[in-house]
Amino acid sequence: MAGSTFGTIFRITTWGESHGPGIGVVIDGCPAGLDLDESVIQRDLDRRRPGQNKYTTARKEGDQAEILSGVFEGKTTGTPISILIRNQDQRSRDYGNIMELYRPGHADVTFDAKYGFRDYRGGGRSSGRETIGRVAAGAVARRLLESLGITVTAYTRSIGPVWVDDDKLDLAYASDSPLHMPDAAAEKRAQEYLDSCIRLQDSAGGTIDCIVTDLPAGLGEPVFEKLDARLAQAVMSIGAVKAVEIGAGTKAASMNGSQNNDWYEQNEEGPRKATNHSGGTLGGISDGSPLLLRASFKPTPSIAQPQQMLGRDGKCHEVSIHGRHDPVIVPRAVVVVEAMTALTIADLLLVNMAARMDHIRKIYQKQDK
Amino acid sequence: MAGSTFGTIFRITTWGESHGPGIGVVIDGCPAGLDLDESVIQRDLDRRRPGQNKYTTARKEGDQAEILSGVFEGKTTGTPISILIRNQDQRSRDYGNIMELYRPGHADVTFDAKYGFRDYRGGGRSSGRETIGRVAAGAVARRLLESLGITVTAYTRSIGPVWVDDDKLDLAYASDSPLHMPDAAAEKRAQEYLDSCIRLQDSAGGTIDCIVTDLPAGLGEPVFEKLDARLAQAVMSIGAVKAVEIGAGTKAASMNGSQNNDWYEQNEEGPRKATNHSGGTLGGISDGSPLLLRASFKPTPSIAQPQQMLGRDGKCHEVSIHGRHDPVIVPRAVVVVEAMTALTIADLLLVNMAARMDHIRKIYQKQDK
Amino acid sequence: MAGSTFGTIFRITTWGESHGPGIGVVIDGCPAGLDLDESVIQRDLDRRRPGQNKYTTARKEGDQAEILSGVFEGKTTGTPISILIRNQDQRSRDYGNIMELYRPGHADVTFDAKYGFRDYRGGGRSSGRETIGRVAAGAVARRLLESLGITVTAYTRSIGPVWVDDDKLDLAYASDSPLHMPDAAAEKRAQEYLDSCIRLQDSAGGTIDCIVTDLPAGLGEPVFEKLDARLAQAVMSIGAVKAVEIGAGTKAASMNGSQNNDWYEQNEEGPRKATNHSGGTLGGISDGSPLLLRASFKPTPSIAQPQQMLGRDGKCHEVSIHGRHDPVIVPRAVVVVEAMTALTIADLLLVNMAARMDHIRKIYQKQDK
Amino acid sequence: MAGSTFGTIFRITTWGESHGPGIGVVIDGCPAGLDLDESVIQRDLDRRRPGQNKYTTARKEGDQAEILSGVFEGKTTGTPISILIRNQDQRSRDYGNIMELYRPGHADVTFDAKYGFRDYRGGGRSSGRETIGRVAAGAVARRLLESLGITVTAYTRSIGPVWVDDDKLDLAYASDSPLHMPDAAAEKRAQEYLDSCIRLQDSAGGTIDCIVTDLPAGLGEPVFEKLDARLAQAVMSIGAVKAVEIGAGTKAASMNGSQNNDWYEQNEEGPRKATNHSGGTLGGISDGSPLLLRASFKPTPSIAQPQQMLGRDGKCHEVSIHGRHDPVIVPRAVVVVEAMTALTIADLLLVNMAARMDHIRKIYQKQDK
Repeated sequence: MAGSTFGTIFRITTWGESHGPGIGVVIDGCPAGLDLDESVIQRDLDRRRPGQNKYTTARKEGDQAEILSGVFEGKTTGTPISILIRNQDQRSRDYGNIMELYRPGHADVTFDAKYGFRDYRGGGRSSGRETIGRVAAGAVARRLLESLGITVTAYTRSIGPVWVDDDKLDLAYASDSPLHMPDAAAEKRAQEYLDSCIRLQDSAGGTIDCIVTDLPAGLGEPVFEKLDARLAQAVMSIGAVKAVEIGAGTKAASMNGSQNNDWYEQNEEGPRKATNHSGGTLGGISDGSPLLLRASFKPTPSIAQPQQMLGRDGKCHEVSIHGRHDPVIVPRAVVVVEAMTALTIADLLLVNMAARMDHIRKIYQKQDK
Repeated sequence: MAGSTFGTIFRITTWGESHGPGIGVVIDGCPAGLDLDESVIQRDLDRRRPGQNKYTTARKEGDQAEILSGVFEGKTTGTPISILIRNQDQRSRDYGNIMELYRPGHADVTFDAKYGFRDYRGGGRSSGRETIGRVAAGAVARRLLESLGITVTAYTRSIGPVWVDDDKLDLAYASDSPLHMPDAAAEKRAQEYLDSCIRLQDSAGGTIDCIVTDLPAGLGEPVFEKLDARLAQAVMSIGAVKAVEIGAGTKAASMNGSQNNDWYEQNEEGPRKATNHSGGTLGGISDGSPLLLRASFKPTPSIAQPQQMLGRDGKCHEVSIHGRHDPVIVPRAVVVVEAMTALTIADLLLVNMAARMDHIRKIYQKQDK
Repeated sequence: MAGSTFGTIFRITTWGESHGPGIGVVIDGCPAGLDLDESVIQRDLDRRRPGQNKYTTARKEGDQAEILSGVFEGKTTGTPISILIRNQDQRSRDYGNIMELYRPGHADVTFDAKYGFRDYRGGGRSSGRETIGRVAAGAVARRLLESLGITVTAYTRSIGPVWVDDDKLDLAYASDSPLHMPDAAAEKRAQEYLDSCIRLQDSAGGTIDCIVTDLPAGLGEPVFEKLDARLAQAVMSIGAVKAVEIGAGTKAASMNGSQNNDWYEQNEEGPRKATNHSGGTLGGISDGSPLLLRASFKPTPSIAQPQQMLGRDGKCHEVSIHGRHDPVIVPRAVVVVEAMTALTIADLLLVNMAARMDHIRKIYQKQDK
Repeated sequence: MAGSTFGTIFRITTWGESHGPGIGVVIDGCPAGLDLDESVIQRDLDRRRPGQNKYTTARKEGDQAEILSGVFEGKTTGTPISILIRNQDQRSRDYGNIMELYRPGHADVTFDAKYGFRDYRGGGRSSGRETIGRVAAGAVARRLLESLGITVTAYTRSIGPVWVDDDKLDLAYASDSPLHMPDAAAEKRAQEYLDSCIRLQDSAGGTIDCIVTDLPAGLGEPVFEKLDARLAQAVMSIGAVKAVEIGAGTKAASMNGSQNNDWYEQNEEGPRKATNHSGGTLGGISDGSPLLLRASFKPTPSIAQPQQMLGRDGKCHEVSIHGRHDPVIVPRAVVVVEAMTALTIADLLLVNMAARMDHIRKIYQKQDK
């Protein structure tokens, strides 16, 4: 398996299991001269940290990031940035009873099939804690994008049956709210729905939308490294994501061309897109309008009610899983979607620098020629 | 731009524009000893060929594949397989009037933004003809998979508002039918819908489902090269795709954990999955059950009715586009979805060989040790 | 096998066997807006063409390059550039008698070991004709470098025991001379030496030096993609190369630090290197002085005198090989060394653009910020 | 810069500076089920550790490896293996006086040119300590190879003018001797030579040979990922290496074909190579005979005698460098050459598994088919 690396120029490699000594990431290819210290990373790690309210797992972890290399006197040096987060609260005895069982909806059965055995403590590498490396690296990518004026913002669009309407999107509200939902009324309904899930020993899924603003036109490398294709890989690689949509997404399939084609309206500063069904990308290249994507998350597979489970003995068993699990992972995944989006865009931004001879001349041509 | 290569071990590089001398692909990493000749490739190319009925463009192309390397005496040699398809019917004068315009829903504007200029004849590299290289390579990947008993089958699930129901799936019917829809009654309604689109000088979108059977468990490389993540990239990289779903897809977001978790039932041969909401993958690794994915295609952006277009002059213009375009591209894209799926699986199948020491010993350990 | 691709951003994929329909290369990632037509490629192909004098094989080939994609109205478009050279003179019957034998010094035995069988006609993919794709792509890389004022020049430094002294280097003479040796007197001795090899049905090896001038400082990506490491891979990948040296090369091993350290002398324009033992690279990054490398080529393994050969039957056989072979390949390999050097540098030049935040701001930062 | 990753399937990413918090490596793609614990890694780290005798730097470091992930109950799990070595003895004040100077033969000048500034403490990323990550990962690769019976052994072939003759190679002696030279008499002369270098405040270079035995035939991926090409990159990427030779190396250039072609002699067990000028590779693929490579190291650039140095002010300065430096780095680099060789071979061994359909059938074909 060599699947832990993502990116061509801005390239990350994540590592770590939920119950091993730690979790981390190496960022190779971050340009030199970017302001960076641990607080930048800590801010995003804190946003995904468990134990914040009753809808997230009670596991307590400090999740303190330590930068081990690649930063000198507050700036990136161009060399690999290694970030380490020690695991602290590893009650692995909780998982003893599932050593010989394949939990429904978990990767237990497939890790055994692929590798012949597995680290069964809390999901090992397929645990949600794996995303810590992504978030730490994503914070660095975001810092790079922000220095160019590009912002990446995700929020909870739905939880179970509760959706936020298009005309209610209050992103400022979502940034600090418990479920990161951009509409207080919808969020209240979602909380009531989650309360009922908890009562029923069940769990819920949901959707996360992400928007990128002030993205330069030209990013994305046809035909396999298109902006939308790379984002689809990046976001689908997050555990529990079952669908990725760009712009109008699945709705585009039932539209007519005359509806779906975005059109331009003339305003004072010149033509601008009046609609954005394309979601900011045409032919796999950013068009300068906001990038829009949506990820659908399945409900948390770990639920307290008894379930039929396949055993390593090849038989079915009815078992209740104990342990600490979120009734919904969507609110904590908001920062993970942002991270994967920021990482994809940072990489394609650097790759695109070499697309044109005039870019190259800007960097290399001597003044006097 | 170096985005024309896909795959780690079974690796393809496509090239070619719609109105240049030809289109092609180089397959590097195809194992030696696979039976292959041009008829294998031709069969799939013929399935995507235009001019088959009134719902596809009238452009006539033989699209004859020539194998230029990598095959000797009917078998692959392990060296790169280069496949060339000459372009024949290149009425580029049809496109003269859009040289200075950015067609809505096309990549004209973004290619100009990225590269500073573009080959404006028929879309250049962003034309649908770009998929010829994918289909040719996909036919080789499919041959490899079939030699191991793995089948890849896609079909039209919906066109515009017309959907095929779950209980009506007749895949044998779909393989030869005009719209590749697995239900004759739905297909008739879809044809009527397309007739109305043509009358209104408009176009339609739709969805394609793909199923892979007899896939071994264990394929997919966590955490970024997961089976579902690589499929999402592969399928989203097809022009006009706006959403990729795995298994229950977007529906998973509104389910509860107790509904969405697949359960096993005991039958004579042992436990087997009674549901398949996961779509054959858990933790990004195949679980041995059928792989299920869905792609949503936007409607063909080229429509005959007059539209507002942005010009290179920075102004809006109302123009009608002439040329030959399909009212719907979904039926012709069925084989493209199969190709990208087959290419992804063939690559991950080869990559997975190195996942376990016992695999390695099978290949390298001497008998007497 | 997926080893036919070289480069990260400026990335080439070569294909083709000596006796198949053709040979070619796909260049992906060449920046848009570079002046290019077939004459640029043809010039370098003509320099490696056989049949130029009695020291090169009598095989006659036009080796005409056809550009199939990626160029529009005399400029690269940023999309893949596919180049095809048809094979014309394929007297494969000459090779019939070695179908069951492994020629000494050839890859026959290893191709059989790796792939289970091989295309035995003229060496297949391990033939010297494989370098045609490298040379065609190298011509494009060289054009890119030349547009920035960077020149890549190789020449024959030795043939058998005949060496050109440091104080006799007349590179202008070498560019058109029969053996590409930069000293007419040495070249005459080398020709006499080759005449004696021909008489004795034997062959000779030699060395090629390559110099790159006006290379910007900063190219090379520590620690595995260093400039010298990538050049070593590139040049060692040429068939028959057995050693690659940078700067002082093997001689550095017997020097003292006080001798080997390059020192700077003060002249009117400021300090400049008085020696160049480093060969233009320190820590794997170009230092702005000329890049110097040397490749050692083994003698042509195909010789007319009878030799002991291993057979597929596992026994030894004494056999004379017929066919057309050069008594020395070094003069024809000069352009191949240039090509591999140019390809390596072009790629690292593009990769380096993303090394610093100030480069990135030059490309992306809006004027008014 | 994204140059810190090496390998396609068995892929390592190193990180860390000499005077930061630590040094480390992430190994992604190590097969599951390999026996591994920290002692395996520690053994090789101890072989490169400084402070062992008067010929190596007096810097004292424990260099204790900690495995942070990827190993469970004494076996690799198939997930990334992260290894951390904390830096302990960081007397960075020693380097204060060279903050504004470019030390001759060091990467100071090129790091500044590439990144705009540098971590000047002890060379930062271009320090010899960077090799710790290589050695830690190399120990894991070696463990994998040894489990298949493949051994990788390097030794000092020369120091300054002192060479070990072909008929004196006592590899068992070299494994524990102070300079890792396989001939006690030569080693004694080398020690006397180094004593004189120390007296003269100067340094020496040397060469390291590496041999790989019991290597299966078939490894190496033509045409750019050939075994010799990948080894050349791997070994040239070690700081201070200026030449890489395979088999006969530079000597091949002055041989005739009839001398250089290896021939087979018939013995009881069948034909076997009587000579090994090829060094175990033909056409870039291993032939089953021992692999032979040689690396030439330049003398340590840090010497105590006063030298002319370029300053950041653009002027020349005569300065003596203080600090702790080895008079020769060759003995400590022996294990680094082994590490890079083992890493290259482990990767190509895994990549080669997919070269043939019969390999693939061995892994995937069901028994009853």
